[in-house]
Amino acid sequence: MISEKMKALVAGSSVTRAMFEEGNRLAKIYGRENVYDFSLGNPNVPAPEKVKNAIIDIVNTVDPIKLHGYMSNAGYEEVREKIAASINKRFGMNYGANNILMTVGAAGGLNVILKVLLNPSDEVVVFAPFFGEYKNYVSNYDGNLVVVSPDTATFQPKLDEFEAKITAKTKVVIVNSPNNPSGVIYSEETLTKLSEILVKKEKEFGTSIYLVTDEPYRELAYGNVTVPYVPKFYHNTVVGYSYSKSLSLPGERIGYLVIPAELDDYEDVWGGACVANRILGFVNAPSLQQLFLAECLDESTDISYYERNRNTLYDGLTKIGYECPSPEGAFYLFMKTPIDDKEFCEKAKKYNILVVPGSAFIFR
Amino acid sequence: MISEKMKALVAGSSVTRAMFEEGNRLAKIYGRENVYDFSLGNPNVPAPEKVKNAIIDIVNTVDPIKLHGYMSNAGYEEVREKIAASINKRFGMNYGANNILMTVGAAGGLNVILKVLLNPSDEVVVFAPFFGEYKNYVSNYDGNLVVVSPDTATFQPKLDEFEAKITAKTKVVIVNSPNNPSGVIYSEETLTKLSEILVKKEKEFGTSIYLVTDEPYRELAYGNVTVPYVPKFYHNTVVGYSYSKSLSLPGERIGYLVIPAELDDYEDVWGGACVANRILGFVNAPSLQQLFLAECLDESTDISYYERNRNTLYDGLTKIGYECPSPEGAFYLFMKTPIDDKEFCEKAKKYNILVVPGSAFIFR
Repeated sequence: MISEKMKALVAGSSVTRAMFEEGNRLAKIYGRENVYDFSLGNPNVPAPEKVKNAIIDIVNTVDPIKLHGYMSNAGYEEVREKIAASINKRFGMNYGANNILMTVGAAGGLNVILKVLLNPSDEVVVFAPFFGEYKNYVSNYDGNLVVVSPDTATFQPKLDEFEAKITAKTKVVIVNSPNNPSGVIYSEETLTKLSEILVKKEKEFGTSIYLVTDEPYRELAYGNVTVPYVPKFYHNTVVGYSYSKSLSLPGERIGYLVIPAELDDYEDVWGGACVANRILGFVNAPSLQQLFLAECLDESTDISYYERNRNTLYDGLTKIGYECPSPEGAFYLFMKTPIDDKEFCEKAKKYNILVVPGSAFIFR
Repeated sequence: MISEKMKALVAGSSVTRAMFEEGNRLAKIYGRENVYDFSLGNPNVPAPEKVKNAIIDIVNTVDPIKLHGYMSNAGYEEVREKIAASINKRFGMNYGANNILMTVGAAGGLNVILKVLLNPSDEVVVFAPFFGEYKNYVSNYDGNLVVVSPDTATFQPKLDEFEAKITAKTKVVIVNSPNNPSGVIYSEETLTKLSEILVKKEKEFGTSIYLVTDEPYRELAYGNVTVPYVPKFYHNTVVGYSYSKSLSLPGERIGYLVIPAELDDYEDVWGGACVANRILGFVNAPSLQQLFLAECLDESTDISYYERNRNTLYDGLTKIGYECPSPEGAFYLFMKTPIDDKEFCEKAKKYNILVVPGSAFIFR
């Protein structure tokens, strides 16, 4: 009796989530310390101590009517101002409170912006391999997903194929750098070319094409690599940010959208996003989370921990003959399996090792 | 460049929210104490002291990896068990953890269950006057809203009209008691008759009709009135609950769905709801909120404060000639205006009084 769309979704539900649940099941049998769970992007560096202190300070000093109450659907104005100021300082932008919409994580933010932009059968371009949820988010608003095949040598986007796949129906392009699952970071050169293609295609079709950049891994980059700030490269860019990985707060559901004033139809997009945040049932990002993170904008997670993990795994695996791109950022490793990927994951499970088949990232 | 659906939504955006924003604007000019804001359902009784203590205790004692981490999309199992036990004790039910899905408030919960149940053009029946957001939630999943006109004498549902409006396409019926905006509580007699009609119609059409009961005001009932527990009356009932009003936490976005095992296709509905919670972008209800409210299940807000407000307003307004049903619950008062309702609200604004026109509740 559930909807047809939902039936298909339940049947093909997230392999990553299924592995996570399997890990919890095995942990009950063998003990948590004997299960090697590489499934979900659940940070294992604790949140900075400042988070705890900020929470205690806030509940002790802020009037509970304000602290726990409704605010504007976009979030507390002073929180949005602080975030804008922090971005302006780091990346030389010129944002104000009305460019920052507080969201229930990046997942909430992506749903909000897709709800605002997509008419049924509008096209959304993604680059394989990609986070499988994009497919579901696009389907929520009846958009059509257009997949650009992967360059398995570099895992940088195939820009020729990208250009050929843009049509008059292309409304949104999603990029994700540092990338889940490959760990690759899009270079300034890549972003410059990508922008040139978009500008050209906007003119050719007389349309607006919005570039949505999903950035939960922005702060997780290793060595001397820098992660370019995408809105500097293309006028119609919307940023989806999350504190899930940067402050190790994935369960708390806190992030924001950047909706720059130079966007085509900025007023409509901003107004629409405020309404979408409300009617999709988020209403607003959780109030306590908004207030405590505003006190933690200069905090960061312990990157050296992830870098050590990356080096251990990458060096160890390549030494024994596995192939994979060296992740420059994020905390994933996208390894070529010597046998069918699903079979490989099933075999690994017998050793209490939970890994996710690459095909879950619609690698084609 | 925003979607057609969104354009209409922005144009006809929430009058209640607009009044709330107007109140904030006036407060900046005249001072908060000189603005009488009766717009949004923002509780003005502070959250119980226990909330603060529970938060401090949790951040001091729970491992941050667990506290701020991902858990199952349904929420922490131990939290769901505690809530189930609390409901079982209060209402004599037999729920377990797999009947309780933690949600981003009732708004999140209603979106989840509608996403699970509705095929495009399925019908959702509501009773006027009703919370205007239902219209948007149903539209999110391309359902058709069917409105039963109000009985302006009693504001109890018109059951004859209800029965006549049920068709083979009816998938969901939404009730909301204590009611926003009328304050009326559905009696046991009303619920018994409503259930009889639904059972009869399910047989007649060979369909499952789900009764979704939206219960943010359950704990706000005055005098000796009791609020019947709807799942006791009808087998296919899903409860949407929120702690927004009962613990004065609307900004924190925390609530749950009850998905009873006796539901038609329970496994599919439960599985679908877990997936919908994820792909709609909620992922899970905020983790800290889940953990602290589990420590506050026996707490309640100060009802006497709202009861005093109700008596002051109801007695004062009826004495000078206004007509309205006496609210038995919730914290609204649905008053007949002597002139056009929108004109009335505009005039009230000149005295810094923010009230919402009844037509916003699709009173027809």
